Amino acid sequence: MVIEQLPKPVSRQPGPGELFQMLRDGAPRTRAELASVTGQARSTVATRIDMLMTAGLIVTVGEAHSTGGRPPAVFAFSPESRVVLAIDLGATHARMALTDLASNIIADSEDKLPIDLGPDKVLAWVCEKGDEMLAASGRGRRELVSVGVGLPGPVEFSSGRPINPPIMPGWDDADVAGRLGAHFDAPVLVDNDVNIMALGEHRSEWPDVSDLLFVKVATGIGSGIIADGSLRRGARGAAGDIGHIAVPGAEDTPCRCGNLGCLEAVAGSDAIARRLRQEGVEVSGSAQIVALVRSGDLSAARALRQAGRDVGTVLAACVSMLNPSMIVIGGSIAEAGEQLMAGIREVVYSRSLPLATQHLRVVASRARGEAAILGASALAIDHVLSAEAIDAALA
Amino acid sequence: MVIEQLPKPVSRQPGPGELFQMLRDGAPRTRAELASVTGQARSTVATRIDMLMTAGLIVTVGEAHSTGGRPPAVFAFSPESRVVLAIDLGATHARMALTDLASNIIADSEDKLPIDLGPDKVLAWVCEKGDEMLAASGRGRRELVSVGVGLPGPVEFSSGRPINPPIMPGWDDADVAGRLGAHFDAPVLVDNDVNIMALGEHRSEWPDVSDLLFVKVATGIGSGIIADGSLRRGARGAAGDIGHIAVPGAEDTPCRCGNLGCLEAVAGSDAIARRLRQEGVEVSGSAQIVALVRSGDLSAARALRQAGRDVGTVLAACVSMLNPSMIVIGGSIAEAGEQLMAGIREVVYSRSLPLATQHLRVVASRARGEAAILGASALAIDHVLSAEAIDAALA
Repeated sequence: MVIEQLPKPVSRQPGPGELFQMLRDGAPRTRAELASVTGQARSTVATRIDMLMTAGLIVTVGEAHSTGGRPPAVFAFSPESRVVLAIDLGATHARMALTDLASNIIADSEDKLPIDLGPDKVLAWVCEKGDEMLAASGRGRRELVSVGVGLPGPVEFSSGRPINPPIMPGWDDADVAGRLGAHFDAPVLVDNDVNIMALGEHRSEWPDVSDLLFVKVATGIGSGIIADGSLRRGARGAAGDIGHIAVPGAEDTPCRCGNLGCLEAVAGSDAIARRLRQEGVEVSGSAQIVALVRSGDLSAARALRQAGRDVGTVLAACVSMLNPSMIVIGGSIAEAGEQLMAGIREVVYSRSLPLATQHLRVVASRARGEAAILGASALAIDHVLSAEAIDAALA
Repeated sequence: MVIEQLPKPVSRQPGPGELFQMLRDGAPRTRAELASVTGQARSTVATRIDMLMTAGLIVTVGEAHSTGGRPPAVFAFSPESRVVLAIDLGATHARMALTDLASNIIADSEDKLPIDLGPDKVLAWVCEKGDEMLAASGRGRRELVSVGVGLPGPVEFSSGRPINPPIMPGWDDADVAGRLGAHFDAPVLVDNDVNIMALGEHRSEWPDVSDLLFVKVATGIGSGIIADGSLRRGARGAAGDIGHIAVPGAEDTPCRCGNLGCLEAVAGSDAIARRLRQEGVEVSGSAQIVALVRSGDLSAARALRQAGRDVGTVLAACVSMLNPSMIVIGGSIAEAGEQLMAGIREVVYSRSLPLATQHLRVVASRARGEAAILGASALAIDHVLSAEAIDAALA
């Protein structure tokens, strides 16, 4: 048999990106070692190393010992060569940071910025602030390779657009990625705030835990899923949205989403504050609740413990579903400490199957206030430093 | 700076496995094309092609046109060269199949075999049956490269051992992989039955759906999670175990697991039969329930619809959590048809967030009775045909 027409190769041709990933993840190497490890021809490796050097992504870090002749150069990843902009927009704040390609923070800022000003004003402010931070750090626009953004509402990750975000009036379907990308002339990755917190917490504190559930408890309640080492967003980027799962026995509590008995309507900070006001304790917002609990107020401690149990009821289902080895509790209400955690543990350990809880740890966030900004940075870096992205950039 | 001691390379040296994956997933290729696509040296490609030919994993399928001189050979994956044994053990049955490396069924069988005979008797029977099937198909033991097994209970995937399986007396911590591996002299992959059904359904019917939840409704209720294209097992292999998630309002129903109000205790076939018997309809087991519904019995139809709503209550939480684009309903009770599906859809679409349900499809299994055996075959094949496994085998 003679095949008349050979089909075009469909697989990606491995390029300099593969070499780069080895240097990014591992130890410095010589050309000869890279050729040996990859099976690529020596001449191919030499060409690709030159491309990566020219792009500033790798540097020589010294010379290997030689048994004679000129000692070979040793190459390593150079994270300082470029910067990314990490942006965490909340309901009322804007946290921003400039980081290098290893998520080291070069400059950062935190400002009051109500998200309900709408996308025009908020994004213009972000552009101006980003320019200021670049200028103040002495980094040019050309050194900025990508931007990572977290938003306080549902985002379709593939398009970088919010979808019917409940607390972001005017933002529905706004082209956040497109507008910021046009200004900064760089790719922009947009995700919801809980996903970037999960990513930041995972990368900075528990990189070796392959199945981790990060839970944010604040005004809203949500989660980010790390499964087999990667963030899982589901089909439309809505995975982890546990705030609107029904809590048994709470069917008479209306939620802003239009349904009844949602977790967020029962255990979010507004719900906790409402419960405390019914007991005569005047309080509103996460910060006041946390302060009350820390001051030793018994009503507040009880309310936090109950909120923990309600969160635990939903997390018990999540544990059965996902079998994580770690649940990390973050968000402003988690700052109140052990009462919330105790309530969560109480229900999770009693309500899930033994196989799923035998080695399960429920811990408080370590990255805390840094989680979101570190996650936005990681999101931006991963996008430009993947082997495919490097190949495309240097093609 | 001179680096005194260069660290050893830690990355895997890409070997013939990379070439093989290209031929397995794609079109037939010449040596020159493979060298061009992989960036490997021509001499390396030639050596590796020879190794894969000798191993019988690839064959020449013809010659490419040449502009002069001897036309170059074209190589392709040869799925017929080897076989795997796929084994699906249920509570009372043993389904087995011999397939080629593309999951084409060469021989299959179905027998009554109560799992509560214990691992000694059951595994001895499986070994004998496997030998018979190999002999009857004219395939030698040496052609068998791996074995995939599904068991009706929790399995720690990494060790291939059941863990406290409720309906498998005597099987706790039994070394299923080790015993079958010693007999068949091949690697053995063991997973729970729902995971292999999910894998089989996904591979055979919806390979392009990257986020899919497969739900089995029978005596037990469970699910298998496909996220970003792969089966996700969680930290200990227990992911997808939705049968013991609490159903709101069912707190007075005891479950065999020791908890109250579990989905399985409310909507599994035993629960449906019990409900029907309370209405005076004498029935037991999935088959009788399905027959009753198909005969037009209204009580049975009502019971199925309610079971669907109860399953839907838990699936609504799963949809919020995982955001799949497809839920596939399988298992013996699903054979009853639309009443179950209607109950599930009713609750899932009313109880989940719009973003998660906008493009969600809830469909009946297409692979049906073949899902488990196709999944066990896929599990076995993936293990021996991964690039890493090929490299190790040919090293």
